[in-house]
This record gives sequence, C-alpha cells and structure tokens, in this order.
Amino acid sequence: MRFARVGEAGRERPVVLDEAGKAYDISGLTADIDGAFLAGDGPARAAAELSAGSLTEVPLDGVRYGPPVARPGKIVCIGLNYSDHAAETGSPTPGEPILFMKAPNVMVGPDDTVLIPRRSEKTDYEVELAIIIGKETSYLDSPEDADAVIAGYAIADDVSEREFQAERGGTWDKGKSCATFLPLGPWLVTPDEVGDPQNLALRTRVNGGIRQDGNTKNMIFGVRHLVWYISQFMVLEPGDVIPTGTPAGVGFGNNDFPFLTAGDVVELEIDRLGRQRHTLAQA
Amino acid sequence: MRFARVGEAGRERPVVLDEAGKAYDISGLTADIDGAFLAGDGPARAAAELSAGSLTEVPLDGVRYGPPVARPGKIVCIGLNYSDHAAETGSPTPGEPILFMKAPNVMVGPDDTVLIPRRSEKTDYEVELAIIIGKETSYLDSPEDADAVIAGYAIADDVSEREFQAERGGTWDKGKSCATFLPLGPWLVTPDEVGDPQNLALRTRVNGGIRQDGNTKNMIFGVRHLVWYISQFMVLEPGDVIPTGTPAGVGFGNNDFPFLTAGDVVELEIDRLGRQRHTLAQA
Repeated sequence: MRFARVGEAGRERPVVLDEAGKAYDISGLTADIDGAFLAGDGPARAAAELSAGSLTEVPLDGVRYGPPVARPGKIVCIGLNYSDHAAETGSPTPGEPILFMKAPNVMVGPDDTVLIPRRSEKTDYEVELAIIIGKETSYLDSPEDADAVIAGYAIADDVSEREFQAERGGTWDKGKSCATFLPLGPWLVTPDEVGDPQNLALRTRVNGGIRQDGNTKNMIFGVRHLVWYISQFMVLEPGDVIPTGTPAGVGFGNNDFPFLTAGDVVELEIDRLGRQRHTLAQA
Repeated sequence: MRFARVGEAGRERPVVLDEAGKAYDISGLTADIDGAFLAGDGPARAAAELSAGSLTEVPLDGVRYGPPVARPGKIVCIGLNYSDHAAETGSPTPGEPILFMKAPNVMVGPDDTVLIPRRSEKTDYEVELAIIIGKETSYLDSPEDADAVIAGYAIADDVSEREFQAERGGTWDKGKSCATFLPLGPWLVTPDEVGDPQNLALRTRVNGGIRQDGNTKNMIFGVRHLVWYISQFMVLEPGDVIPTGTPAGVGFGNNDFPFLTAGDVVELEIDRLGRQRHTLAQA
C-alpha cells in the first residue's frame, strides 16, 4: 500500500492510494500520517476502509505532495554505505555502519524547492532509500527482528553541503541540517508492496543528465542490519526516518560532476517508490 | 524568572517559581512549557499572573522534576568548547565551533535514573550550560542578535559513551543519543535572572568527589557566538536545546577518573541554575 500527504505545506491531508494510483482521503481515520498512525495499526485500518469502498477520492491533478510522514522525532542517516561511493570520496569501506543525524525540521516534500545555503559553494545531492519506523524499537536481538518494526520506505534526497560537512571542523552534521535538506517521498510504501528492499534500482539526474545509477543490492549494510544496529545505540520511535546511504556519482566524488547551483533541477527515482523532481534556489 | 515541569514523566505540570522558590501552577496559561509557550510571550504572561497573585501554589516536597522544557525539536551540542577539556582529550583547540546532535528523545529530568547502555564500558558525564531557544532563528546577522532569541538556560548532563563516540567509526552522534543521555534542569532560568552567562561556575561530583570545577568564562566560543554560528547552518526553533560544551575533568580525560558504573551518583551544579543528582543503572 502507498500513503501520501497532499496539500499545502503544514496543512497536508493524509491519503491512501489504490493500485491504479487513485488517492483517497483518510482524514476520517487519522489526523495525519505520523508515528501514532503507524504504531496504532493505522495502515491496516486504512486498507480495510479502502477495500470496503468507503473512502472519498482526492483528485491528484496539480496537487503538492508533502513528505509522506509528518515531522519525525529524529532522522538518523547512514554514511558511506555503498562501496563505490566510499571509494569515490577516498574513504575506506566502513567496518560497521557510520551514523549521523539531520535536524528533524529539514524535511520537505519531494518536489519542493531546495535551498542552497548562504555562503555555500558545495551543495550536493544523494539519492537514498529511506526506512520509516513503525514501532518503538530498542536493543533488537537480531537483524531478522527488524522486519516487524519497519512501516515502509520512501525516496530521500540527503542534500549535503560538503564544505560545511568536511572542511569546517567537527562532525558531518554541520553540512546535513540546512533548511530543506531532506526532500522525502512522494509516497510511504509498505514493505509488502516494496518486496525485496535489497534489489531496488535508484537513480539521480541533474538537468536531465544521469549522475547516480545504483542498486540497493550494493549496500554494505542492508536494511535489516541497519535497523538492528541503530537500535543498539538509541531508541527508535514510530515515524523516525532512516536514509540508508547513497551510491556513487555525487558532486563530492572523484568525477567531473559539479556541485548544485540555483536553477538546477534534480530528479530522483527508486523502483516502486516513485520519483522526486526539485529545483534549487538560493537561500 | 524560573520555570519548571513537575510530576510524573510524560505528565508534568508547568510551574513558575517566585523569588522565595515557591512554585505556582501555570497550566491555566499553557498546557506545557514548550516552544509555543516560549515564542508566544508566555514567560511575560506568567510573570504578570505571578505578580497579580492569581496563581495556585504547588507543593514541591518530594516532587519529581521533569526537564524544564517539553521535548525539543532538536538538541544541538557543542564539542570541545573549553580549552582545558580539549587539552585533556588530546584534541587541538577548535578554530570554529564543533557541532553534533543528540536525538530529541534522550532528555530526562535532572534527578531521573541515567542508564548505562548495554555493552558500554565507557559511560561518562559532562556538566554543561544549556541554552533554550525562544524564537525561530536563521542567519542571524551578528552574535549580538542572539540575545533576542534566547529564552533561558538550564543545567545539562551531556552523558556520553566514549567507545561508541570515538572508537566505533563515523561521527560522535553514535555515543551521544542513548536513552536517558540528557538530564536537563531542574529549572529553565530566564536571562535576566542568570545575568552574565559567561561568568557561571559549574561543577560535577561523582559519589561526592569533585571531578569538574570550571567556569563559563573559559568557553572558547561564548553563548552569543554559538547561537549566531549555529543559525548559519540550520533553522533553530523555539524549545530547541543547545548544550554548550564541558570543562575538564571527565572520565575521557587524561586523569585517573574512572568511567561510570551502576550505582554511581552524579551531582551537577551551575551558579543560579540549581543542581542535579542522578543515579546510574544498567540498561
């Protein structure tokens, strides 16, 4: 099943999509697609209402998509999780997952404008498979236990400012939490509809030119391992978002790809998760 | 003025304290001490009600203190912000502030139990002056502008797991976001009552023995500089918490102080901000 939040920023309406891609209002079931909805059997109730034909269709023509889950408690990111990306940045392949954070207020819709921070010269894209957590999770016994706490998946652009991240001292967080630095969506897709999360092609184009062309099968640490691993260090909560790392082809890599400038159009796609298209502007 | 949140965890009642230290219920003014209260002129309204004598006293005998601000949108921490602490860890003095993050769900009350994570052997304390933000803040023009957006200050224990932080790859965040890793409070003290934030003694005792004994005048980057600096990289929001770094004397330093073990009692104090006393237990 696919869920989305549509409408103007801060006032999105929750919808569920049917197989044909038509959207139906579920605001009678839940005020929002958030941690409480995901933890409280909301997706199953929405499925039942959809099957029963009791929901009202919401036209999607020209509608804005918000991020498909309301503001999360935290955004825990994985660094250097594809060996080709680690290599292009001159970094060794990590022996265990690299964690960093984005501020929760950076999330925007998949097609919203992305802002280049003031004094930035190295704003960069990163297409990533994002995990959305569905249950409070701590100290999982094994990676296999992760399936029970994953509510679904979405496309994320882990927008990054490389000078802030790597040349200004301290941790990566400094270059990861600028306003609008996590376009998410368009959909939250449930695991049954995604199938194997370790076999999804993911791509980035900038102004129509292909930049990233990878597959989640090349992750160093897979989705289950990541959720299990993070749960040893912190308490994951329903609605938390985990972008799982990016394949090679970013501006930060050893290639001829430039960093982003105002007016650039970034398009991301991941199998079964839809596509994003956002334009860059100066903050 | 001093604000607090008292009562059982998750159901704290907001109070304001008078000069004698008596507490008065302000739940008629606001459901909680949170970003909306701080941004919406709540402290001034509470002051007016307190002066008018129209509030009901809340007995403090045996009461539990929660963190003095409800769950923040983010917790942005400063690393190595006292030169004696940078030196004791063998790190160079930073040329600009080091930023890292704690997950917002790690905040607990000042006297709540602090949990040593499973498989931890290096859990450590850090007494810190925490700034509480009162207004949405982005791209401040100068450090002087910071005064207008600071709602107040509180004591923070930036509890840290040093192996997770420094020996497990990636950023510091891995050792900073374990459950219960930010006791905050007891009070949110407004700037007028704190006076000069760069002249506050701060101390840590473990099982009665002095471990940290510093003063905020020895910060490398002062409070105003930090708020201005962070605002260049991210949007600060009302209720956000900024622990500003710790002086020398932690277990991670080049001294004979051991890391914490279950049963240890940690006491923190900062001039005008009260004191914390929490006991360690095994997660």
